[in-house]
Amino acid sequence: MSVTAEPIARVVLALSKLPGIGPKSAQRLAYHLLQSADADIEELADSLRALKGSLTLCATCFNVTDKNPCMICADTQRDSSILCVIERPADIPPVERTGRFSGFYHVLHGALSPARGVGPEDLRIQELLPRVWNTGVREVILATNPTVEGEATAMYIRQVISPAGVRVSRLARGLPFGADIEYADDITLGQAFDSRQGFW
Amino acid sequence: MSVTAEPIARVVLALSKLPGIGPKSAQRLAYHLLQSADADIEELADSLRALKGSLTLCATCFNVTDKNPCMICADTQRDSSILCVIERPADIPPVERTGRFSGFYHVLHGALSPARGVGPEDLRIQELLPRVWNTGVREVILATNPTVEGEATAMYIRQVISPAGVRVSRLARGLPFGADIEYADDITLGQAFDSRQGFW
Repeated sequence: MSVTAEPIARVVLALSKLPGIGPKSAQRLAYHLLQSADADIEELADSLRALKGSLTLCATCFNVTDKNPCMICADTQRDSSILCVIERPADIPPVERTGRFSGFYHVLHGALSPARGVGPEDLRIQELLPRVWNTGVREVILATNPTVEGEATAMYIRQVISPAGVRVSRLARGLPFGADIEYADDITLGQAFDSRQGFW
Repeated sequence: MSVTAEPIARVVLALSKLPGIGPKSAQRLAYHLLQSADADIEELADSLRALKGSLTLCATCFNVTDKNPCMICADTQRDSSILCVIERPADIPPVERTGRFSGFYHVLHGALSPARGVGPEDLRIQELLPRVWNTGVREVILATNPTVEGEATAMYIRQVISPAGVRVSRLARGLPFGADIEYADDITLGQAFDSRQGFW
């Protein structure tokens, strides 16, 4: 028998369904919420309720948005000659934080995975083609994840867009900032050697 | 200008007010929620709304509860001769998980802190006294935190309940399970020496 009051146990259960939140942290969060201002709890609950209602996919880039076109596609200051292809809407904020990219995005909503039955027709690849052909795009950065599925997706897209004659690139592979060579995995360290850069 | 749609940014802001959830994990959680079933989001929002409404403090032990007396105080199977004094309701689940304690609790709702202006009258110390005197209690475990404030609170309570003549104990101090002596802090390691136990 649990000794936790039912309203607390209910919040713990709902929170522990979130990624990275185990039963113990869910419990800590629930007890923290118990001591939070009512207004903060209300706002969290309200924001959750409002999360999906007004959201849709941008008809151009397929980012999640409450406007159409999305804020990024509507931004005339951005560089229309360069397109960054990503797997998930969640990949956009980290790329934006780097401050290294000011072009437009194209969200695939997944990666090719024969094992999980995800084929090209399940991703937004068909919708990528006119963007590469008909607009002034000169470079397509295939920023899918550095995983088996992300690599397969990048290779497939490279193949289908190659007739357009645009430059196609892939994010660099190598040691992450702060890494320790002693503990680097073989694949990463091998790629760091293969892609070594002049330094003189 | 943020490139994140407002409904997402709102959830990110509300989540990042929780302890241990920084802006990046809040963003990850929000994007995860976007892909969650509507029913799961509803349940999380509903459980949050219901969290405080039906909760009160147990009139006996001051645990947070939706029944009075709370589930623990109402449990006649527990050992009424031993009382565990803790700072917070959140301290009960971890103690229960150890399976080492089957007595009753007394929740102080804080610890003495001259710096933050918390005196004995701000804690549930007054309410502890009749429990120690009038019932069949034979031992009081002072399970306040192993911090300066928790120690001060334990010392104060030991003093005020000493006339009752019950056994007063404190949780053991020492190296945590899995610790590395090389990296142990001086205070912990010193206490591990002071409290060393026969091993032969």
